[in-house]
Amino acid sequence: MVKKNELVLKYLGIDTHKDPIVYMRSDCLICKSEGFNAQTRVMVHLNEHSIIATLNMIETDLLKHNEASLSNYAWNLLEAKNDDIITITHPKTLESIGYIRSKIYGNELKQSETECVIKDIVSGQLSDINIAMYIAASGGDRLTQQEVLDLTRAMVKTGQKLNWSSPLIVDKHSVGGLSGNRTTPIVVAIVAAYGLLIPKTSSRAITSPAGTADTMEVFTNVTLDIPTMKKVVEKEYGCVTWGGAIGISPADDLLIRIERTVNLDSVGQMVASILSKKIAAGSTHVVIDVPVGSTAKIRSLTQAKQLKKLLSFVARQCDMKIKIIFTDGSQPVGRGIGPALEARDILAVLNNAENAPADLREHALILAGHLLDFCPKIKAHQGFEIAKTILENGQALKKFEAICRAQGGMREIPTASFTHTVESKYSGLIRSMDNRHIATIAKLAGAPDAKSAGIELLVTLNSTIERSQPLFKIHAETRGQLHYALDFFHQGHDICQIE
Amino acid sequence: MVKKNELVLKYLGIDTHKDPIVYMRSDCLICKSEGFNAQTRVMVHLNEHSIIATLNMIETDLLKHNEASLSNYAWNLLEAKNDDIITITHPKTLESIGYIRSKIYGNELKQSETECVIKDIVSGQLSDINIAMYIAASGGDRLTQQEVLDLTRAMVKTGQKLNWSSPLIVDKHSVGGLSGNRTTPIVVAIVAAYGLLIPKTSSRAITSPAGTADTMEVFTNVTLDIPTMKKVVEKEYGCVTWGGAIGISPADDLLIRIERTVNLDSVGQMVASILSKKIAAGSTHVVIDVPVGSTAKIRSLTQAKQLKKLLSFVARQCDMKIKIIFTDGSQPVGRGIGPALEARDILAVLNNAENAPADLREHALILAGHLLDFCPKIKAHQGFEIAKTILENGQALKKFEAICRAQGGMREIPTASFTHTVESKYSGLIRSMDNRHIATIAKLAGAPDAKSAGIELLVTLNSTIERSQPLFKIHAETRGQLHYALDFFHQGHDICQIE
Repeated sequence: MVKKNELVLKYLGIDTHKDPIVYMRSDCLICKSEGFNAQTRVMVHLNEHSIIATLNMIETDLLKHNEASLSNYAWNLLEAKNDDIITITHPKTLESIGYIRSKIYGNELKQSETECVIKDIVSGQLSDINIAMYIAASGGDRLTQQEVLDLTRAMVKTGQKLNWSSPLIVDKHSVGGLSGNRTTPIVVAIVAAYGLLIPKTSSRAITSPAGTADTMEVFTNVTLDIPTMKKVVEKEYGCVTWGGAIGISPADDLLIRIERTVNLDSVGQMVASILSKKIAAGSTHVVIDVPVGSTAKIRSLTQAKQLKKLLSFVARQCDMKIKIIFTDGSQPVGRGIGPALEARDILAVLNNAENAPADLREHALILAGHLLDFCPKIKAHQGFEIAKTILENGQALKKFEAICRAQGGMREIPTASFTHTVESKYSGLIRSMDNRHIATIAKLAGAPDAKSAGIELLVTLNSTIERSQPLFKIHAETRGQLHYALDFFHQGHDICQIE
Repeated sequence: MVKKNELVLKYLGIDTHKDPIVYMRSDCLICKSEGFNAQTRVMVHLNEHSIIATLNMIETDLLKHNEASLSNYAWNLLEAKNDDIITITHPKTLESIGYIRSKIYGNELKQSETECVIKDIVSGQLSDINIAMYIAASGGDRLTQQEVLDLTRAMVKTGQKLNWSSPLIVDKHSVGGLSGNRTTPIVVAIVAAYGLLIPKTSSRAITSPAGTADTMEVFTNVTLDIPTMKKVVEKEYGCVTWGGAIGISPADDLLIRIERTVNLDSVGQMVASILSKKIAAGSTHVVIDVPVGSTAKIRSLTQAKQLKKLLSFVARQCDMKIKIIFTDGSQPVGRGIGPALEARDILAVLNNAENAPADLREHALILAGHLLDFCPKIKAHQGFEIAKTILENGQALKKFEAICRAQGGMREIPTASFTHTVESKYSGLIRSMDNRHIATIAKLAGAPDAKSAGIELLVTLNSTIERSQPLFKIHAETRGQLHYALDFFHQGHDICQIE
């Protein structure tokens, strides 16, 4: 017996990614009595769960009278089954909408207001449109220091928090934008081999062709729950897992999903994103690597200093020790860009292979050295030398393999089915490389979702090349994606400037 | 014979309002070869039409292999029929995305950049999320004078433009936020009766319980195409039609649809919205009425002056004469709020009825007077007196009826099925009225979609009332909406402050 305001669920299997949609007939009595139209935001209740969803109306017999459906995301949020009975009501007026409007008007939000916005984002109350407005209104330098701190804390508060018994939990973060800069697996292997605790949670790509989690996934399973992750760290001192899987700072994933549509990386949002995840992961001592270069995410020293100031302020308020280092962001680090191609570089470094990319090795040793320097037992900045020894004597490789096994087994690196090598039209000196074009081409080729897709660089900055010398090779898993990447390149989006 | 990248359309009848969606099977070969996922933006081609749509994936047999579907909006944009064959490709990288990002970072956009953003909005290239970001990044006072001018011109350029043979085309606009301020039909009737050309296009509600087009629709058809509208104006000198129907400034509707989700009305966007429609309608002389009051859209004289400065700048650059007048925005004008209730007030004024709301009458006469003063034949500000005569001798009513007939016939005003009268809990003096709460209650009751829904005010500002005296009556077309409005009121959202 179905009552007023109740509808029977029928699975239609419509995947809208993270957009909760409820499908109802346009001639449905609830719509008529409540005055609902297409795109109205409504509240959907099922047992003890409630979500706010966007209404899409069905004007055919896809649904019978008294039937409704949900997009897969909404279906999962409500833990729905076929024939379950849902209730539909008007959502309450959201206070957070007023705060978003206030932010658009340029006001500084109070702590409780930022918290309310983030809470409503995480619980699925706010629509993508309204989240997008909050992001845009907070973009550029429109968040004050205090707002960034409040945002960081709100993002920690709305997610899981890890606790560790040790007083020294180290972590590292590289501010992205530099293709191929995949030092994390190497750093974790070295630091864990020394015996410091480094429970590393990484993110998937935001605007880049691969995030550390995407690259690590080439080697092993990265979707670990908290108990499994803890077991790995207890056994091996370190891990590299996907932060999204353990519900650390879920707000971050929801914001990033919108930010990536316009390739946005504002300083305030970047700081909250980085530090909320470090705080929630229980890290106490963190090294933050900021590559600076004209086509990196951070383009100038001025911008780098602004980021450093904000990172330092928020970290201090949250009782976290951080060390921020600026590194050269003028060219990609390593040779491969894309998950599998980067994995190849990592393995070469860990293997101390002769052809291993020297820049990636050096970069990883510097970061590992700074982390080791946090250890009270290590005096006079000996960290770098210790890191070098651990890498060279094979302890790091051994530790990396052990971590992969602990995370679920170590896999072979896949290769792409379609490749195309681009040759130089000129001879001369390579004066600059465009990280943004490199990233775009790798993404068009399918990275990061297509694991073996990406770019393999065959030349480096400041080297002299001949006409017809191979510059780089595009890897793709489908012919369509290979062509799409090439089309973009041929539209005048060069990656090397040759003189 | 269906080729690679081609799919056969099947109508599913999913109404997503103005969000273009394409539905494809998740195991579809195109998705696999092109690397498409749920929420990917793809280009859909059918005959000579192309649109960018958001991909939703179907994981059931709702669609067969080689089949696809479209949301109703996308279906109409492409003029699709069942069994039509569509082609799916990657959309080109949009330059406008870069400009939106630039605006978020706080940069001033160049004319060509604003034009590109608006063009991409109107042609359906940009997603709602990205339009929302542009709006938020341009909100508050974040558009320069020049950007507002560029935005106005871009909005004119992307729509239809009306041309008239007369050198004097008058028009009026009231900046909303003041409930029940429905002077337009009265003003048009008076001015047209005098013999000036006033081809009025009005908008539907943005954040208010009724727009002029919604109210006029109670009387007659407002969805007129350009030839029909021209015919009405040639015959009767005036009309009141819905601007959205004739494709004047289509960008405005698309922006407003997003702005209303957070009740946003930024000054720059307001100016572009108002003036783009006046310019496109071919108006040469315009009176702009700005009600100022603490709960009106424009809350202070400072804000009013900022608006005046910006309106004057843009109008001057576009060779339009405007007169801006500030009026009292401390209480609603008229007695009814909501389309039918406002229509009732209008008819009472035109009938010179004894119980006609005096404030509405006065307000309409002032505006009509200023418009008549634009006429070179009228000297020494005699406009107001002439307007009064035309109203009092019944010429205005006759003209209004003639305009309604020309637009398609004059209708009876409907009444609501459900009403509830709220009585005062106290006796005392009414010190203030909250326009925002009045508007919210009227909207919750169903206005403007439910024509007869709204609020009927039974008291006025500065009057003394007794305990249990009726304050206002809520009108609704369904019991659900009546309760929803009352719930909001009972949550402490009073509309009169009584001392």
